[in-house]
Amino acid sequence: MSVLSSIKHARDKVLDARDSRRLANLCRQLLTERGQPNSVNIATSALKLYENLGLASQHQFFNLLAEEFDPDPGVVLLLAERYAVNRNPDTLLALSQAAESPRQELFRRLNRAPGGTAVLVHMRELMLKGLATNPHWRSVDADFEHLLSSWFNPGFLQMQKIDWGSPARLLEQLIAHEAVHAIVDWNDLRRRLQPDRRCFAFFHPALPLEPLIFVEVALLSEMPNAVGALLDEKSVAADPKSFKVATFYSISNCQPGLRGISLGNFLIKQVAKALSEELPQLKTFCTLSPIPSFGRWLSKLDAIESTRLKPKVVAQLSAQLESFKARKQEALPAWDAMGIKDRALIETLCGFYLLHTSSTGGHSSDPVARFHLGNGARLERVNPQADLSKKAAKESHGFMVNYLYDLDQIEANHEAFMGDSVQASRAIKQYF
Amino acid sequence: MSVLSSIKHARDKVLDARDSRRLANLCRQLLTERGQPNSVNIATSALKLYENLGLASQHQFFNLLAEEFDPDPGVVLLLAERYAVNRNPDTLLALSQAAESPRQELFRRLNRAPGGTAVLVHMRELMLKGLATNPHWRSVDADFEHLLSSWFNPGFLQMQKIDWGSPARLLEQLIAHEAVHAIVDWNDLRRRLQPDRRCFAFFHPALPLEPLIFVEVALLSEMPNAVGALLDEKSVAADPKSFKVATFYSISNCQPGLRGISLGNFLIKQVAKALSEELPQLKTFCTLSPIPSFGRWLSKLDAIESTRLKPKVVAQLSAQLESFKARKQEALPAWDAMGIKDRALIETLCGFYLLHTSSTGGHSSDPVARFHLGNGARLERVNPQADLSKKAAKESHGFMVNYLYDLDQIEANHEAFMGDSVQASRAIKQYF
Amino acid sequence: MSVLSSIKHARDKVLDARDSRRLANLCRQLLTERGQPNSVNIATSALKLYENLGLASQHQFFNLLAEEFDPDPGVVLLLAERYAVNRNPDTLLALSQAAESPRQELFRRLNRAPGGTAVLVHMRELMLKGLATNPHWRSVDADFEHLLSSWFNPGFLQMQKIDWGSPARLLEQLIAHEAVHAIVDWNDLRRRLQPDRRCFAFFHPALPLEPLIFVEVALLSEMPNAVGALLDEKSVAADPKSFKVATFYSISNCQPGLRGISLGNFLIKQVAKALSEELPQLKTFCTLSPIPSFGRWLSKLDAIESTRLKPKVVAQLSAQLESFKARKQEALPAWDAMGIKDRALIETLCGFYLLHTSSTGGHSSDPVARFHLGNGARLERVNPQADLSKKAAKESHGFMVNYLYDLDQIEANHEAFMGDSVQASRAIKQYF
Amino acid sequence: MSVLSSIKHARDKVLDARDSRRLANLCRQLLTERGQPNSVNIATSALKLYENLGLASQHQFFNLLAEEFDPDPGVVLLLAERYAVNRNPDTLLALSQAAESPRQELFRRLNRAPGGTAVLVHMRELMLKGLATNPHWRSVDADFEHLLSSWFNPGFLQMQKIDWGSPARLLEQLIAHEAVHAIVDWNDLRRRLQPDRRCFAFFHPALPLEPLIFVEVALLSEMPNAVGALLDEKSVAADPKSFKVATFYSISNCQPGLRGISLGNFLIKQVAKALSEELPQLKTFCTLSPIPSFGRWLSKLDAIESTRLKPKVVAQLSAQLESFKARKQEALPAWDAMGIKDRALIETLCGFYLLHTSSTGGHSSDPVARFHLGNGARLERVNPQADLSKKAAKESHGFMVNYLYDLDQIEANHEAFMGDSVQASRAIKQYF
Repeated sequence: MSVLSSIKHARDKVLDARDSRRLANLCRQLLTERGQPNSVNIATSALKLYENLGLASQHQFFNLLAEEFDPDPGVVLLLAERYAVNRNPDTLLALSQAAESPRQELFRRLNRAPGGTAVLVHMRELMLKGLATNPHWRSVDADFEHLLSSWFNPGFLQMQKIDWGSPARLLEQLIAHEAVHAIVDWNDLRRRLQPDRRCFAFFHPALPLEPLIFVEVALLSEMPNAVGALLDEKSVAADPKSFKVATFYSISNCQPGLRGISLGNFLIKQVAKALSEELPQLKTFCTLSPIPSFGRWLSKLDAIESTRLKPKVVAQLSAQLESFKARKQEALPAWDAMGIKDRALIETLCGFYLLHTSSTGGHSSDPVARFHLGNGARLERVNPQADLSKKAAKESHGFMVNYLYDLDQIEANHEAFMGDSVQASRAIKQYF
Repeated sequence: MSVLSSIKHARDKVLDARDSRRLANLCRQLLTERGQPNSVNIATSALKLYENLGLASQHQFFNLLAEEFDPDPGVVLLLAERYAVNRNPDTLLALSQAAESPRQELFRRLNRAPGGTAVLVHMRELMLKGLATNPHWRSVDADFEHLLSSWFNPGFLQMQKIDWGSPARLLEQLIAHEAVHAIVDWNDLRRRLQPDRRCFAFFHPALPLEPLIFVEVALLSEMPNAVGALLDEKSVAADPKSFKVATFYSISNCQPGLRGISLGNFLIKQVAKALSEELPQLKTFCTLSPIPSFGRWLSKLDAIESTRLKPKVVAQLSAQLESFKARKQEALPAWDAMGIKDRALIETLCGFYLLHTSSTGGHSSDPVARFHLGNGARLERVNPQADLSKKAAKESHGFMVNYLYDLDQIEANHEAFMGDSVQASRAIKQYF
Repeated sequence: MSVLSSIKHARDKVLDARDSRRLANLCRQLLTERGQPNSVNIATSALKLYENLGLASQHQFFNLLAEEFDPDPGVVLLLAERYAVNRNPDTLLALSQAAESPRQELFRRLNRAPGGTAVLVHMRELMLKGLATNPHWRSVDADFEHLLSSWFNPGFLQMQKIDWGSPARLLEQLIAHEAVHAIVDWNDLRRRLQPDRRCFAFFHPALPLEPLIFVEVALLSEMPNAVGALLDEKSVAADPKSFKVATFYSISNCQPGLRGISLGNFLIKQVAKALSEELPQLKTFCTLSPIPSFGRWLSKLDAIESTRLKPKVVAQLSAQLESFKARKQEALPAWDAMGIKDRALIETLCGFYLLHTSSTGGHSSDPVARFHLGNGARLERVNPQADLSKKAAKESHGFMVNYLYDLDQIEANHEAFMGDSVQASRAIKQYF
Repeated sequence: MSVLSSIKHARDKVLDARDSRRLANLCRQLLTERGQPNSVNIATSALKLYENLGLASQHQFFNLLAEEFDPDPGVVLLLAERYAVNRNPDTLLALSQAAESPRQELFRRLNRAPGGTAVLVHMRELMLKGLATNPHWRSVDADFEHLLSSWFNPGFLQMQKIDWGSPARLLEQLIAHEAVHAIVDWNDLRRRLQPDRRCFAFFHPALPLEPLIFVEVALLSEMPNAVGALLDEKSVAADPKSFKVATFYSISNCQPGLRGISLGNFLIKQVAKALSEELPQLKTFCTLSPIPSFGRWLSKLDAIESTRLKPKVVAQLSAQLESFKARKQEALPAWDAMGIKDRALIETLCGFYLLHTSSTGGHSSDPVARFHLGNGARLERVNPQADLSKKAAKESHGFMVNYLYDLDQIEANHEAFMGDSVQASRAIKQYF
């Protein structure tokens, strides 16, 4: 480090220290009575100071949040005793106020600053990055999650259709955040926004230009068994008269600071509702989804018996499995080089794997499966050679899966899944 | 009651009873895990049932909310003890979850229904009407207030200018809700929306067509001492070059269901900021406000010594006061029939009354004064014969008052007021 | 006139004279080559000068327009000869340019000023008021009409639905311009904008806040026979399920400067198309129209034989007519005081009168009938006691008429009408 | 050609012939009285038929337009004689109606179809492509130009700012139509829409999604002498405080069907006005323009004496010119390989070339120079090595030029230019 940059560095540290103290004081002032009439200005100043701090000082600020704004244990205990002895509105109200972290009120008041919501969401995003190494921030994170969950309640979200007439500024965010099937360029994007494709996103009024989550839909004549055709830039848009099936083929979150806030479930159902109103000819709503953990599970198949599988299933598959496991020392051959029997075995195992998805999220369960099954969808069809990309070859040997959203069955399906019974089509269930 | 209507009445009661049970079950279901994937539909059904109930059944529903959705005292006590013994994120998180009323989560989930926010706000409005005779609803109301205060945080409100180009549907709500100087008809309204008058309102994105609160402003060449000219339908709009003073002459809440949620303070300051940016020539921001409690206070003036007045003030006024009180048996004469000395005395007493406004809201304090002084405004000028309406004659002998909003002094003024010292212009302070 | 106002008057005359000369020069400059690069500024200055002139000077300006901007007769004649001798694109182009009034190019260039279109439309409005006494302005008016007809071509008009959510600024123009059934106040207006009533207007993009023409529609369960119920402020909006008939009950022009530009015909048909798309259950599109000239015609009934009536019709009615005409010395009694026979006679005469509407607009024809029959509508039903207002009693003895718009028959109906044969329902035709 | 495609071809010809006849009949019907009430439908059908015709049949339709819809020479001559003998509004009106091509009324009625304006503009675009080989279409084209010039009058155009928040559908049209400095991809485009660059376009309300013309502007600290830096995708947006000069560096028409309609002149001036209002610190408005004809002129330099140059200029340059011309047999070397003297000579010749631009558009004049000088701009600075692209090397040896728009001098500059005197900076004039 040069002398000059050392000096600059030292000066920045001094400034940061000063600004950190100021920020702490503004936060304390916000929570006092006398900060009230001026709270918008104080919150504005506080968030500006925070944004200009260096990373280390921002982490210090998270420490301050974790240490200084907890409820007072003695007071809470006293009031909990009173409420236990004499349950009435007065004792309850006193308890409620004392038991809520002052942090939550602090966040609510910081949110009074213009643009405050966006800063708070990004603040949490930064904190989440450091959470693993700073486990004492968990209480701060819990308060964030609790508040954001209330503020980003579906009742406050606005679903918008996104198409080729949307602002470029918004469209480039789709390119940036697409997490399932990367958008290569603007031509790729344009194809995904043509009339036989749809894209919908949730927005929050306080973040008007930032999509929170978006889903891409293909309108098709039948349930698709491969993603290649869906993404083909050069394909011609289909005639609306042929639309029978709406397939959700990609869903991506755009705001890491909203982790844990349920959005996808609501978006899929609201989109299904909107589409079935616009296009009554749509009879089927399904997904074409990746199975990102299948490959890993398959590579550790030895452990299969130790899981909670039904004995008859293991018995049924055991001969094939033995041969399969014996060969596991070598890597699995590529699909093209595989024999028919092996192909059949893998397909069966894929159905098996998904059918045993656990709602409580055991390590072997596929996260995408848990999401859709937890939403109340049904496991419908396993598709080999459905995604020919390298990523999919590695993650899932090219397999993809359709989940079916039958809006009338969602609640029953979900309830069954909570009891660890996965609802599936007859085609899948027959294997087992 | 006729036989037929008796039958209908009986049938309605049966239906209501059935729907009440359904509503209760839907609320319970919403809070369970299995209600999750379908929660938007459940919430929609629940709110529809609620809206169609008769009044008595809606009150029963409030009873249910008050009785069934409190935190569990035993659990809270146990977790409060753990937190007191071992303060860490885990014990805190457990305590926080247990100490928050399940009612709050219930309201958040009901809010997932389309249009849910409006129903909840109107639900609280109804509950507030019966609160005095149903004090056990206070815990429900506290949860409403806590949640709505978070949801109607200034960071989520949108200030909009309202003018003659606004939708008629919106403008008729100004006519309906104007609480200070009634809007007689559409011509009266049109005058208040001409270029030398302004109107601003807060909206919440979930209630897009319902203003929450609005303020009316007159742009003038000097601080006004009477309201008649401001409201004169036939007055000609002033030249923008003459604007020097922005006077807030009316502020009205539109949503009784948001009682206790601070809105006016934020609106006034945001309007002052917006106007000073649009019209840099504006140097003064003030109000022309009623003094609704002055008349009542004056009629009970005997009690003045028993208040916490400074002795020298009482001494100073005592001679006049004695004569004044002696005559209190008779009603005060009308202003026109009053002698000069009496006029001067009343003006002095009016300043005196306002100058002794208490931030803690003693019974003798004027509510409008408490609002503006609490916002950090300064008591600027007392104006006799400022409002010639019958209502004002009765409430305040025709007096009005200007409060001055000096944005740089707001925090200091507020702090002084919290210490029960009212900041005032020299003109007012010299009396005492 | 006082001395001071005399001086002011004299000064204004001098200024007007100066500005008139400036205006004339700017107009000449606009038409030269050198005015081109600056034409927007020149046009802006010219229109500003025009608007600030006194009325007399504005009339002088119309004189200038009439005298100085005609085509050159000699040149036109020469080029017409060349074109007659040698018809080709060159001779045609030369002729076209010479034969068009330079006034038209002048108006096109004046229109380059921001807001120019509105000024030109209002300029023509003013000129039309003086046209009767200044017949030499007719060539100016013809150029105005020719240009405005091109600019206000239906392809450039935008139909907008107007409802209670429209800006008050726009709604007050409905109140101002309603020419058939006056809108009494805002409550009356609100009723006409409820969901079982519709209002549509044409706008031109260059006059965004000024409706050009608007039509009011009632959605009903059957063709109405009286207007009172339609206009009843206190009536409750009907259930959309009951809508079967759309009735145009009022159509009003808002821009006198657009006299002679066809708008109503296009508006009615575009509204009918839009409504039948929105509400496929609508099977009938009709009017409920006044018959403003019926009363006058009836009072001059002696002249009936001298018209081109079919002999058998006259024969059929002659006995009644003789008795009727004999009594014409006295005024007709009010409807309530009339005998049954007289009532029947008048109803017959009303149908007779309308059935003999002439497309060439003879003096005895009803203008509203000519408008709708010329649009291709059919005469459907005559309704006695349909409008109980004083105005209607005087104009049409309270009669109103339904014209039926059967979109498939419009062209045939119109063609027949051009041959002076009025298409009518069997109910009407049977009289004759 | 296969048998099958022969059959299809033959069938298409038959259908086209049938549709051509129908189209001709609809056009005739549109011009008769009986087509009036149904004209929107007739126009809609006619334009649909036209659009579906094959190219040969569309050309046949242009022939029909050219042959059948001219004014009647005999009638025009008769009425021109009457007007010449007796000039009054009646004779003028009769003449005007007879002398205008019925084609114009036909176009106005076709324009009544929804979307008609766009079809007509594209119809003219197609006709212009064949005009050179079909000179008899010139009368049709003249009517198109006359009408479109009236309809696309600046008073009806709407200037819109285009930026990164504009719809992608619109932005891709910029990429398609940029005619000066091609937009390579969306990253290139994004750079051109950052805050130190501006883009404005004219739109017509009847073609809401199609820009008519757009101009790109760079906001800079000084007048630029090369285009490379302006177009550098990776350059960082400049600080608004540094803006002093607004440079128009590209202007492109998007609608070939509007050839001959003046748009660029109005757009540049309206943009200059808007920018000087938004950013009062902008003191200079100039261009950085190509000189597309300079290279060709230079290669034919022998002819220079035969032009209307001043003798002293020729004398001054003659020695250099002789040597230059002597070498013309060989191609000019590339700039890098050129000696200093040659470079100076070419720069002088470039200024000389531009300074002798003729307003009447002699073959040797540069079209871009004629456009800007005709708009009233001044020739400000010649910049060598200003455009390093191959195209510019070929067209202009890499030279570009700044034209200065001094809004106060525009009219005088234009007037001088009309007299063939080019206004230029002292730096340029000193050469000569």
